[in-house]
Amino acid sequence: MEYFPSALENLIDKFASLPGIGRKTAQRLAFYILALPDGAAMSFAEAVIEAKKNVRCCSICLNLTDKEFCAICSSDRRDSGIICVVSDPKGILAIERSHEYKGRYHVLHGVISPMSGVGPDDIRIRELVARVTDGEVDEVIMATNPDVECETTARYISQLLHPFGVKVTRLAYGIPVGSSLEFADDATLMRALEGRLEM
Amino acid sequence: MEYFPSALENLIDKFASLPGIGRKTAQRLAFYILALPDGAAMSFAEAVIEAKKNVRCCSICLNLTDKEFCAICSSDRRDSGIICVVSDPKGILAIERSHEYKGRYHVLHGVISPMSGVGPDDIRIRELVARVTDGEVDEVIMATNPDVECETTARYISQLLHPFGVKVTRLAYGIPVGSSLEFADDATLMRALEGRLEM
Repeated sequence: MEYFPSALENLIDKFASLPGIGRKTAQRLAFYILALPDGAAMSFAEAVIEAKKNVRCCSICLNLTDKEFCAICSSDRRDSGIICVVSDPKGILAIERSHEYKGRYHVLHGVISPMSGVGPDDIRIRELVARVTDGEVDEVIMATNPDVECETTARYISQLLHPFGVKVTRLAYGIPVGSSLEFADDATLMRALEGRLEM
Repeated sequence: MEYFPSALENLIDKFASLPGIGRKTAQRLAFYILALPDGAAMSFAEAVIEAKKNVRCCSICLNLTDKEFCAICSSDRRDSGIICVVSDPKGILAIERSHEYKGRYHVLHGVISPMSGVGPDDIRIRELVARVTDGEVDEVIMATNPDVECETTARYISQLLHPFGVKVTRLAYGIPVGSSLEFADDATLMRALEGRLEM
Protein backbone atom coordinates (compact mmCIF):
# COMPACT_ATOMS: atom_id res chain seq x y z
CA MET A 1 0.00 0.00 0.00
CA GLU A 2 1.21 3.51 -0.77
CA TYR A 3 1.04 5.64 2.33
CA PHE A 4 1.95 8.90 0.61
CA PRO A 5 0.29 10.36 -2.49
CA SER A 6 2.21 9.83 -5.72
CA ALA A 7 2.99 13.54 -6.18
CA LEU A 8 4.74 13.52 -2.80
CA GLU A 9 6.54 10.23 -3.53
CA ASN A 10 7.69 11.77 -6.80
CA LEU A 11 9.05 14.88 -5.08
CA ILE A 12 10.88 12.67 -2.54
CA ASP A 13 12.36 10.67 -5.46
CA LYS A 14 13.55 13.88 -7.14
CA PHE A 15 15.27 15.12 -4.00
CA ALA A 16 16.78 11.69 -3.39
CA SER A 17 18.27 11.77 -6.90
CA LEU A 18 20.42 14.79 -5.97
CA PRO A 19 24.04 14.01 -5.01
CA GLY A 20 24.60 13.42 -1.30
CA ILE A 21 20.88 13.44 -0.46
CA GLY A 22 19.65 10.16 1.04
CA ARG A 23 16.08 8.91 1.30
CA LYS A 24 15.49 10.30 4.81
CA THR A 25 16.83 13.76 3.96
CA ALA A 26 14.79 13.76 0.73
CA GLN A 27 11.67 13.02 2.80
CA ARG A 28 12.49 15.85 5.20
CA LEU A 29 13.04 18.31 2.32
CA ALA A 30 9.83 17.27 0.53
CA PHE A 31 7.81 17.75 3.74
CA TYR A 32 9.44 21.13 4.20
CA ILE A 33 8.41 22.16 0.66
CA LEU A 34 4.83 21.03 1.35
CA ALA A 35 4.73 23.12 4.50
CA LEU A 36 5.96 26.25 2.68
CA PRO A 37 3.46 28.94 1.63
CA ASP A 38 2.37 28.49 -2.01
CA GLY A 39 4.43 31.46 -3.19
CA ALA A 40 7.66 30.24 -1.64
CA ALA A 41 7.28 26.74 -3.12
CA MET A 42 6.54 28.19 -6.55
CA SER A 43 9.54 30.50 -6.39
CA PHE A 44 11.71 27.48 -5.54
CA ALA A 45 10.45 25.71 -8.67
CA GLU A 46 10.91 28.87 -10.70
CA ALA A 47 14.48 29.28 -9.47
CA VAL A 48 15.28 25.85 -10.93
CA ILE A 49 13.64 26.74 -14.26
CA GLU A 50 15.22 30.22 -14.44
CA ALA A 51 18.71 28.99 -13.60
CA LYS A 52 18.44 26.28 -16.22
CA LYS A 53 17.11 28.76 -18.81
CA ASN A 54 19.36 31.78 -18.20
CA VAL A 55 22.71 30.42 -17.13
CA ARG A 56 25.18 29.82 -19.97
CA CYS A 57 28.93 29.71 -20.41
CA CYS A 58 30.94 32.90 -20.96
CA SER A 59 32.06 33.03 -24.60
CA ILE A 60 35.65 33.67 -23.56
CA CYS A 61 36.48 31.80 -20.35
CA LEU A 62 33.49 29.40 -20.10
CA ASN A 63 32.67 30.58 -16.57
CA LEU A 64 28.93 30.56 -15.84
CA THR A 65 27.10 33.78 -16.71
CA ASP A 66 23.73 35.05 -17.86
CA LYS A 67 25.27 37.39 -20.43
CA GLU A 68 27.57 36.93 -23.43
CA PHE A 69 30.67 37.53 -21.26
CA CYS A 70 31.12 36.89 -17.53
CA ALA A 71 31.83 39.66 -15.01
CA ILE A 72 35.55 38.88 -14.95
CA CYS A 73 35.97 38.77 -18.73
CA SER A 74 34.02 42.03 -19.14
CA SER A 75 36.16 43.82 -16.54
CA ASP A 76 38.96 45.97 -17.97
CA ARG A 77 40.87 45.86 -14.68
CA ARG A 78 41.91 42.25 -15.25
CA ASP A 79 45.26 41.31 -16.80
CA SER A 80 44.58 39.47 -20.07
CA GLY A 81 48.16 38.20 -20.11
CA ILE A 82 47.56 35.59 -17.40
CA ILE A 83 45.01 32.77 -17.57
CA CYS A 84 44.24 30.67 -14.52
CA VAL A 85 42.86 27.26 -15.55
CA VAL A 86 40.31 25.64 -13.22
CA SER A 87 38.37 22.42 -13.69
CA ASP A 88 34.98 23.90 -12.72
CA PRO A 89 33.44 27.31 -11.94
CA LYS A 90 33.69 26.74 -8.17
CA GLY A 91 37.47 26.93 -8.60
CA ILE A 92 37.09 30.59 -9.60
CA LEU A 93 35.28 31.36 -6.34
CA ALA A 94 38.12 29.77 -4.38
CA ILE A 95 40.87 31.68 -6.18
CA GLU A 96 38.93 34.96 -5.98
CA ARG A 97 38.65 34.50 -2.22
CA SER A 98 42.42 34.99 -1.96
CA HIS A 99 42.08 38.55 -3.46
CA GLU A 100 45.56 37.91 -4.85
CA TYR A 101 44.88 37.04 -8.46
CA LYS A 102 44.20 39.79 -11.01
CA GLY A 103 44.32 37.81 -14.26
CA ARG A 104 41.60 36.03 -16.22
CA TYR A 105 40.30 32.46 -16.01
CA HIS A 106 39.54 29.46 -18.14
CA VAL A 107 37.07 26.79 -17.02
CA LEU A 108 37.71 23.28 -18.37
CA HIS A 109 34.32 21.89 -17.22
CA GLY A 110 35.87 18.55 -16.29
CA VAL A 111 39.18 16.73 -16.15
CA ILE A 112 40.70 14.04 -18.35
CA SER A 113 39.65 10.71 -16.86
CA PRO A 114 40.22 7.62 -19.02
CA MET A 115 38.48 5.49 -16.37
CA SER A 116 35.24 7.46 -16.83
CA GLY A 117 35.72 7.71 -20.59
CA VAL A 118 36.51 11.45 -20.54
CA GLY A 119 39.19 12.28 -23.09
CA PRO A 120 40.94 15.60 -23.91
CA ASP A 121 38.25 16.41 -26.51
CA ASP A 122 35.43 16.05 -23.99
CA ILE A 123 36.57 19.02 -21.90
CA ARG A 124 37.20 22.61 -23.02
CA ILE A 125 40.91 22.36 -23.81
CA ARG A 126 40.48 23.38 -27.46
CA GLU A 127 39.08 26.77 -26.37
CA LEU A 128 42.10 27.32 -24.07
CA VAL A 129 44.55 26.56 -26.85
CA ALA A 130 42.68 28.98 -29.13
CA ARG A 131 43.04 31.74 -26.51
CA VAL A 132 46.76 31.05 -26.15
CA THR A 133 47.41 30.99 -29.91
CA ASP A 134 45.89 34.47 -30.11
CA GLY A 135 49.28 35.45 -28.75
CA GLU A 136 48.30 37.84 -25.96
CA VAL A 137 48.89 35.32 -23.18
CA ASP A 138 52.18 35.26 -21.23
CA GLU A 139 51.38 32.73 -18.53
CA VAL A 140 48.92 29.91 -17.91
CA ILE A 141 48.50 28.91 -14.26
CA MET A 142 47.12 25.40 -13.76
CA ALA A 143 44.89 25.60 -10.67
CA THR A 144 43.36 22.14 -10.84
CA ASN A 145 42.97 20.01 -7.72
CA PRO A 146 45.96 18.01 -6.47
CA ASP A 147 44.62 14.59 -7.45
CA VAL A 148 45.72 12.12 -10.11
CA GLU A 149 43.16 12.99 -12.80
CA CYS A 150 43.63 16.74 -12.38
CA GLU A 151 47.42 16.35 -12.51
CA THR A 152 47.14 14.28 -15.68
CA THR A 153 44.99 17.02 -17.21
CA ALA A 154 47.44 19.72 -16.12
CA ARG A 155 50.41 17.83 -17.56
CA TYR A 156 48.57 17.19 -20.83
CA ILE A 157 47.70 20.87 -21.22
CA SER A 158 51.21 21.95 -20.28
CA GLN A 159 52.70 19.75 -23.05
CA LEU A 160 50.07 20.97 -25.50
CA LEU A 161 50.93 24.63 -24.81
CA HIS A 162 54.70 24.11 -24.83
CA PRO A 163 55.16 24.82 -28.60
CA PHE A 164 53.50 28.24 -28.22
CA GLY A 165 56.24 29.48 -25.89
CA VAL A 166 53.80 30.38 -23.14
CA LYS A 167 54.92 29.93 -19.53
CA VAL A 168 52.87 27.20 -17.82
CA THR A 169 52.91 27.11 -14.00
CA ARG A 170 50.91 25.33 -11.33
CA LEU A 171 49.85 26.22 -7.78
CA ALA A 172 52.38 25.27 -5.10
CA TYR A 173 51.72 22.15 -3.05
CA GLY A 174 52.70 22.08 0.61
CA ILE A 175 51.64 22.38 4.22
CA PRO A 176 48.40 24.38 4.55
CA VAL A 177 48.92 27.67 6.43
CA GLY A 178 47.70 27.42 10.02
CA SER A 179 47.93 23.63 9.93
CA SER A 180 50.49 21.49 11.75
CA LEU A 181 53.23 19.21 10.39
CA GLU A 182 51.81 16.48 12.57
CA PHE A 183 48.55 16.37 10.59
CA ALA A 184 50.07 16.61 7.11
CA ASP A 185 49.86 13.37 5.11
CA ASP A 186 52.89 11.69 3.52
CA ALA A 187 52.17 12.87 -0.02
CA THR A 188 51.80 16.49 1.09
CA LEU A 189 55.02 16.35 3.11
CA MET A 190 56.84 14.85 0.14
CA ARG A 191 55.56 17.65 -2.11
CA ALA A 192 56.44 20.26 0.53
CA LEU A 193 60.03 18.93 0.69
CA GLU A 194 60.33 18.82 -3.10
CA GLY A 195 59.10 22.38 -3.38
CA ARG A 196 61.26 23.80 -0.54
CA LEU A 197 62.44 27.39 -1.03
CA GLU A 198 65.61 29.13 0.10
CA MET A 199 65.02 31.52 3.01
CA MET B 1 31.88 41.59 -7.89
CA GLU B 2 29.39 38.82 -8.55
CA TYR B 3 31.19 35.79 -9.91
CA PHE B 4 28.04 33.79 -10.64
CA PRO B 5 25.00 34.96 -12.62
CA SER B 6 22.04 36.04 -10.49
CA ALA B 7 19.82 33.13 -11.60
CA LEU B 8 22.44 30.72 -10.25
CA GLU B 9 22.92 32.72 -7.03
CA ASN B 10 19.15 32.64 -6.60
CA LEU B 11 19.01 28.87 -7.04
CA ILE B 12 21.86 28.45 -4.51
CA ASP B 13 19.92 30.70 -2.08
CA LYS B 14 16.79 28.58 -2.51
CA PHE B 15 18.64 25.34 -1.81
CA ALA B 16 20.41 26.94 1.16
CA SER B 17 17.03 27.91 2.61
CA LEU B 18 16.07 24.24 2.96
CA PRO B 19 16.55 22.73 6.43
CA GLY B 20 19.95 21.09 6.99
CA ILE B 21 21.38 22.34 3.68
CA GLY B 22 24.40 24.62 4.13
CA ARG B 23 25.88 27.04 1.61
CA LYS B 24 28.43 24.56 0.22
CA THR B 25 25.87 21.79 -0.24
CA ALA B 26 23.45 24.28 -1.83
CA GLN B 27 26.19 25.22 -4.30
CA ARG B 28 26.86 21.57 -5.10
CA LEU B 29 23.14 20.90 -5.66
CA ALA B 30 22.67 24.00 -7.85
CA PHE B 31 25.63 22.99 -10.03
CA TYR B 32 24.21 19.50 -10.28
CA ILE B 33 20.86 20.92 -11.48
CA LEU B 34 22.66 23.05 -14.09
CA ALA B 35 24.49 19.99 -15.37
CA LEU B 36 21.26 17.97 -15.72
CA PRO B 37 19.63 17.59 -19.13
CA ASP B 38 16.85 20.18 -19.68
CA GLY B 39 14.09 17.59 -19.26
CA ALA B 40 15.37 16.32 -15.93
CA ALA B 41 15.71 19.83 -14.48
CA MET B 42 12.21 20.73 -15.65
CA SER B 43 10.74 17.56 -14.14
CA PHE B 44 12.42 18.46 -10.84
CA ALA B 45 10.73 21.87 -10.91
CA GLU B 46 7.43 20.28 -11.92
CA ALA B 47 7.64 17.77 -9.06
CA VAL B 48 7.75 20.69 -6.62
CA ILE B 49 4.77 22.39 -8.30
CA GLU B 50 2.75 19.17 -8.61
CA ALA B 51 3.34 18.12 -5.00
CA LYS B 52 2.34 21.54 -3.77
CA LYS B 53 -0.78 21.54 -5.99
CA ASN B 54 -2.04 17.98 -5.55
CA VAL B 55 -1.16 16.97 -2.02
CA ARG B 56 -3.84 17.69 0.59
CA CYS B 57 -4.92 16.31 3.94
CA CYS B 58 -7.24 13.30 4.16
CA SER B 59 -10.69 14.51 5.29
CA ILE B 60 -10.77 11.90 8.05
CA CYS B 61 -7.31 11.36 9.49
CA LEU B 62 -5.40 14.36 8.02
CA ASN B 63 -2.71 12.11 6.55
CA LEU B 64 -1.33 13.44 3.26
CA THR B 65 -3.18 12.28 0.16
CA ASP B 66 -4.08 13.40 -3.35
CA LYS B 67 -7.70 12.22 -2.99
CA GLU B 68 -10.55 13.03 -0.60
CA PHE B 69 -9.56 10.12 1.69
CA CYS B 70 -6.11 8.58 2.18
CA ALA B 71 -5.32 4.94 1.30
CA ILE B 72 -5.66 3.83 4.93
CA CYS B 73 -8.98 5.58 5.55
CA SER B 74 -10.42 4.22 2.29
CA SER B 75 -9.41 0.64 3.13
CA ASP B 76 -12.20 -1.51 4.63
CA ARG B 77 -9.68 -3.93 6.12
CA ARG B 78 -8.72 -1.41 8.83
CA ASP B 79 -10.31 -1.45 12.29
CA SER B 80 -12.16 1.85 12.80
CA GLY B 81 -12.34 1.20 16.54
CA ILE B 82 -8.66 2.08 17.13
CA ILE B 83 -7.04 5.41 16.29
CA CYS B 84 -3.28 5.82 16.47
CA VAL B 85 -2.34 9.49 16.98
CA VAL B 86 0.92 10.69 15.41
CA SER B 87 2.37 14.20 15.31
CA ASP B 88 3.22 14.14 11.58
CA PRO B 89 2.64 11.91 8.53
CA LYS B 90 6.12 10.36 8.82
CA GLY B 91 4.91 8.72 12.04
CA ILE B 92 2.43 6.67 9.98
CA LEU B 93 5.29 5.31 7.85
CA ALA B 94 7.14 4.24 10.98
CA ILE B 95 4.16 2.48 12.56
CA GLU B 96 3.23 0.80 9.26
CA ARG B 97 6.76 -0.60 9.01
CA SER B 98 6.02 -2.77 12.04
CA HIS B 99 3.16 -4.53 10.10
CA GLU B 100 1.56 -4.93 13.52
CA TYR B 101 -1.05 -2.21 13.56
CA LYS B 102 -4.38 -2.71 11.77
CA GLY B 103 -6.34 0.34 13.03
CA ARG B 104 -6.68 3.85 11.64
CA TYR B 105 -4.60 6.99 12.23
CA HIS B 106 -4.93 10.63 13.17
CA VAL B 107 -2.25 13.18 12.26
CA LEU B 108 -1.95 16.18 14.58
CA HIS B 109 0.36 18.15 12.25
CA GLY B 110 2.37 19.48 15.17
CA VAL B 111 2.68 19.30 18.94
CA ILE B 112 1.71 21.70 21.69
CA SER B 113 4.72 23.92 22.33
CA PRO B 114 4.15 27.02 24.46
CA MET B 115 7.76 28.09 23.83
CA SER B 116 7.10 28.31 20.08
CA GLY B 117 3.61 29.76 20.60
CA VAL B 118 1.82 26.58 19.45
CA GLY B 119 -1.33 26.02 21.52
CA PRO B 120 -3.90 23.18 21.46
CA ASP B 121 -6.00 25.06 18.89
CA ASP B 122 -3.07 25.36 16.46
CA ILE B 123 -2.84 21.60 15.89
CA ARG B 124 -5.55 19.19 14.73
CA ILE B 125 -6.88 18.09 18.14
CA ARG B 126 -10.43 19.32 17.48
CA GLU B 127 -10.76 16.88 14.54
CA LEU B 128 -9.60 14.01 16.77
CA VAL B 129 -12.17 14.83 19.46
CA ALA B 130 -14.87 14.99 16.78
CA ARG B 131 -13.92 11.50 15.59
CA VAL B 132 -14.02 10.14 19.15
CA THR B 133 -17.38 11.75 19.97
CA ASP B 134 -18.85 9.95 16.95
CA GLY B 135 -18.77 7.01 19.35
CA GLU B 136 -17.28 4.28 17.18
CA VAL B 137 -13.82 4.53 18.76
CA ASP B 138 -12.75 2.13 21.55
CA GLU B 139 -9.09 3.03 21.91
CA VAL B 140 -6.81 5.94 21.11
CA ILE B 141 -3.10 5.08 21.01
CA MET B 142 -0.78 8.07 21.49
CA ALA B 143 2.25 7.40 19.26
CA THR B 144 3.99 10.75 19.64
CA ASN B 145 7.75 10.97 20.15
CA PRO B 146 9.17 10.49 23.66
CA ASP B 147 10.13 14.14 24.23
CA VAL B 148 8.72 16.79 26.54
CA GLU B 149 6.49 18.62 24.04
CA CYS B 150 5.07 15.42 22.60
CA GLU B 151 4.39 14.07 26.11
CA THR B 152 2.61 17.30 27.05
CA THR B 153 0.49 16.98 23.94
CA ALA B 154 -0.29 13.33 24.67
CA ARG B 155 -1.28 14.12 28.27
CA TYR B 156 -3.46 17.03 27.17
CA ILE B 157 -5.29 14.87 24.63
CA SER B 158 -5.66 12.02 27.10
CA GLN B 159 -7.35 14.34 29.64
CA LEU B 160 -9.53 15.83 26.92
CA LEU B 161 -10.76 12.39 25.81
CA HIS B 162 -11.28 11.08 29.35
CA PRO B 163 -14.98 12.20 29.63
CA PHE B 164 -15.90 10.23 26.50
CA GLY B 165 -15.01 6.91 28.16
CA VAL B 166 -12.50 5.99 25.44
CA LYS B 167 -9.39 4.03 26.42
CA VAL B 168 -6.26 6.15 25.84
CA THR B 169 -2.93 4.31 25.71
CA ARG B 170 0.61 5.21 24.69
CA LEU B 171 3.49 3.28 23.12
CA ALA B 172 5.76 1.49 25.62
CA TYR B 173 9.11 3.11 26.44
CA GLY B 174 12.11 0.91 27.10
CA ILE B 175 15.31 -0.63 25.81
CA PRO B 176 15.33 -0.81 21.98
CA VAL B 177 15.35 -4.40 20.70
CA GLY B 178 18.83 -5.42 19.49
CA SER B 179 20.45 -2.69 21.60
CA SER B 180 22.48 -3.17 24.75
CA LEU B 181 21.82 -2.05 28.35
CA GLU B 182 25.23 -0.46 28.32
CA PHE B 183 24.19 2.07 25.65
CA ALA B 184 20.77 2.91 27.09
CA ASP B 185 20.58 6.40 28.62
CA ASP B 186 19.36 7.06 32.16
CA ALA B 187 15.89 8.27 31.19
CA THR B 188 15.27 5.22 29.01
CA LEU B 189 16.45 2.85 31.74
CA MET B 190 14.19 4.60 34.27
CA ARG B 191 11.21 4.22 31.92
CA ALA B 192 12.13 0.59 31.22
CA LEU B 193 12.17 -0.15 34.97
CA GLU B 194 8.88 1.65 35.55
CA GLY B 195 7.25 -0.26 32.72
CA ARG B 196 8.60 -3.70 33.68
CA LEU B 197 6.32 -6.66 32.98
CA GLU B 198 5.88 -9.97 34.80
CA MET B 199 7.44 -12.92 32.91
